Amino acid sequence: MTRTLASQTPEKMGEQVLLKGWVHVRRDHGKIVFIDLRDRSGLVQIVLTPKLAGHLHAEDVVYITGQVVARPDQLVNPKLASGTVEVRADRVELVSKAAKLPFDMGGVDLNLELPTLLDYRSLVLRHPKVQAIFKVQAVLINAFREALLSQDFLEFQAPVIIPAIPEGGAEVFKFPYFKSQAYLSQSPQLYKSLLVGAFERVFSVNKIFRAEPSVTTRHLTEATSLDAELGFIDSWTEVQDLEEYVVKYIFARLSDKCAAELALFHATIPQVPAKIPVIKLRDAQEIIFQRTGRDCRREKDLAPEDEREICLYTTEKLGSELVFISHFLTAKKPFYVYPDPENSEYAYSVDLLGRGVEWSSGGQRLHDYATILEHVKTWGLQPEDVELYLQSFRYGVPPLGGFALGAERMTMNILGLKNIREASLFPRDLERVDVRLSSLKK
Amino acid sequence: MTRTLASQTPEKMGEQVLLKGWVHVRRDHGKIVFIDLRDRSGLVQIVLTPKLAGHLHAEDVVYITGQVVARPDQLVNPKLASGTVEVRADRVELVSKAAKLPFDMGGVDLNLELPTLLDYRSLVLRHPKVQAIFKVQAVLINAFREALLSQDFLEFQAPVIIPAIPEGGAEVFKFPYFKSQAYLSQSPQLYKSLLVGAFERVFSVNKIFRAEPSVTTRHLTEATSLDAELGFIDSWTEVQDLEEYVVKYIFARLSDKCAAELALFHATIPQVPAKIPVIKLRDAQEIIFQRTGRDCRREKDLAPEDEREICLYTTEKLGSELVFISHFLTAKKPFYVYPDPENSEYAYSVDLLGRGVEWSSGGQRLHDYATILEHVKTWGLQPEDVELYLQSFRYGVPPLGGFALGAERMTMNILGLKNIREASLFPRDLERVDVRLSSLKK
Repeated sequence: MTRTLASQTPEKMGEQVLLKGWVHVRRDHGKIVFIDLRDRSGLVQIVLTPKLAGHLHAEDVVYITGQVVARPDQLVNPKLASGTVEVRADRVELVSKAAKLPFDMGGVDLNLELPTLLDYRSLVLRHPKVQAIFKVQAVLINAFREALLSQDFLEFQAPVIIPAIPEGGAEVFKFPYFKSQAYLSQSPQLYKSLLVGAFERVFSVNKIFRAEPSVTTRHLTEATSLDAELGFIDSWTEVQDLEEYVVKYIFARLSDKCAAELALFHATIPQVPAKIPVIKLRDAQEIIFQRTGRDCRREKDLAPEDEREICLYTTEKLGSELVFISHFLTAKKPFYVYPDPENSEYAYSVDLLGRGVEWSSGGQRLHDYATILEHVKTWGLQPEDVELYLQSFRYGVPPLGGFALGAERMTMNILGLKNIREASLFPRDLERVDVRLSSLKK
Repeated sequence: MTRTLASQTPEKMGEQVLLKGWVHVRRDHGKIVFIDLRDRSGLVQIVLTPKLAGHLHAEDVVYITGQVVARPDQLVNPKLASGTVEVRADRVELVSKAAKLPFDMGGVDLNLELPTLLDYRSLVLRHPKVQAIFKVQAVLINAFREALLSQDFLEFQAPVIIPAIPEGGAEVFKFPYFKSQAYLSQSPQLYKSLLVGAFERVFSVNKIFRAEPSVTTRHLTEATSLDAELGFIDSWTEVQDLEEYVVKYIFARLSDKCAAELALFHATIPQVPAKIPVIKLRDAQEIIFQRTGRDCRREKDLAPEDEREICLYTTEKLGSELVFISHFLTAKKPFYVYPDPENSEYAYSVDLLGRGVEWSSGGQRLHDYATILEHVKTWGLQPEDVELYLQSFRYGVPPLGGFALGAERMTMNILGLKNIREASLFPRDLERVDVRLSSLKK
């Protein structure tokens, strides 16, 4: 018999079906036992005799044969796709026996502390609400791709192993590479820019690495970066326009495909107007000062509290939970940054903040070879450490720019998760790589 | 004026257009200069006066305004999408000046040795035939995704940083990770299998790493792996059926979207019958012995020459350039391999060979916790090194299996490239990470 998924049972009313899945919850009511069977499509209620139910408990893998019957009206479960039916089991095959669970997995919420969520990651990932996080993330990442493919961008595989760290050696993982050494990439920035010289428009879904020496709620040592870069721009604002298009495309896809998952988190797609506001750093700081009396007007960047405040402002006053902050200080940005010709102290750089948190950074990059070389020297770098990059610009690259969105940051922020670790299947940090590092033998 | 792409010029006959791109080739004919302008859509011929053409040379980035006119019939270039027209320039803006090229980029082929292809990677990637490799690769990878999304698989981001190397420490990159150490993943095998316990069907486009200590034509230290894994299989042959479906889906997409790119390489999609043949290792060795007299019948694996021979056989006799080889030796496979119950010396493992080269390996995996634990011990591993994996199977996982295809291997093999480095944008090996490692200061 062909397998029927839980969500397909209402279409098979009265029919004999074969279901395959996990015992999600078992409820004993004397002469009758109810099991919520879980498979990749969701849950369906099974009715069994105590004898058929035997010693089945949560997470046992079972194949169940039975008849689909309608539930009485008063017992219909509107929260379940299969809530109008149940399956009367006549045969149960135990395929894989589970150990007794360390905690209850049957509730709508898991109600566990973060260490437990991570210590039992293989098990925790089976919970429907946890699974919803990664369904949302998969849709988000694929929407990023679709948006850019529709604009004639080429997807490329960005390198993880890199030969040098032009932006300084802090917070970078270094390792022996045969007779030499190499590093884990902190950003595919140089690669995507140099590829504009070849393909004009490129994007990449890639891993970035940061030896973050402290434990925060919004940093991982391994994260997923959504990078895009395009050439032949007429203005730095084209970069921001592209990013706005991509983010809105992602929002549309999430609305369309993830309504149930968003509802589980009581989450909504961030509200944005026809045009996401753009505020220069110095103007943002003035607004924050006017609103709070906190004088950050001479700071070189926005502090987390500033990011929250400026988002509050745009949400309240401009109806936008997202805001672009532009014109950061040239000297605080990497060597490839494009200074504003009207005031080179500030740069054509633009971050996107969403609901109080930085989602992305980006901007226009230098394309003139002589200027880049000058910047390399001013920034105190070795030209040979960026040789492949310089090579590209030596042979003619058009005006260009791009941006990078953090996939886990966005997932966390849209769903309202408290810790970025919840938005990573296998979060890595100072203390943990799958297991607590202290538990591993050296 | 809005930009017109090279490929769009035939639709704008008689109109004034703005083109943006690179000088691909310049040809001087006395009072008239021809330039082939290159952009992401291809080439278009520009006609200029010597004065307008000035000192323009290959790879200069230019914005050109001019009128689209028909070429006389005898001068139509059928190899060019824009071959029926040319653009008479009346204005040229030099946007980015290129240095003099170290070699000619104007020919249909580059005719350079591999070291030059790699030393000038930023420039080489601009050549239309080189670009075709990565357009094919992008379509191939996205087709892999589409095929699996259509079968209800979830895409996940596989980790790069891993805590231990259960399959032995050879050829692995190890690095200091805060107060501990970590490794670069050689395969997402354990993660994709344990995720079957949560999501049933998962796939990942991910990076794998191998500290390959020798220089070969088919190994990279960093490669792109296309991984899929599914649960609730009734037989190991379902894994192979899924892989066949995916590979044929990729072939269909390549036929559909990459005809021009394949033609550049005089390449064809591999020929396969309705059902790709499956041959057991020992039967394949017998066939090779019968055909060549070379007795490999007691070898534990196929040597490269055996892979070529068995593919020749299936091509000649069965009309299939692809062949599955199954039933490798259990003891030569990792601990999670599923032994054939009829003869546990051999396993439910299956490789896919294409045109004489291994494209993938896969098979059914053990799902019974006690058996896995027994194998872990028999294989001489530490259970704590695979703790997250064991955790998943402790709590019930259905019968499962999967496969991994090498993206660069497939690209190389389908296009008939001589060296896998040509199928990687930024190939990493023993001697090179972007630049020759010997050229970097310590």
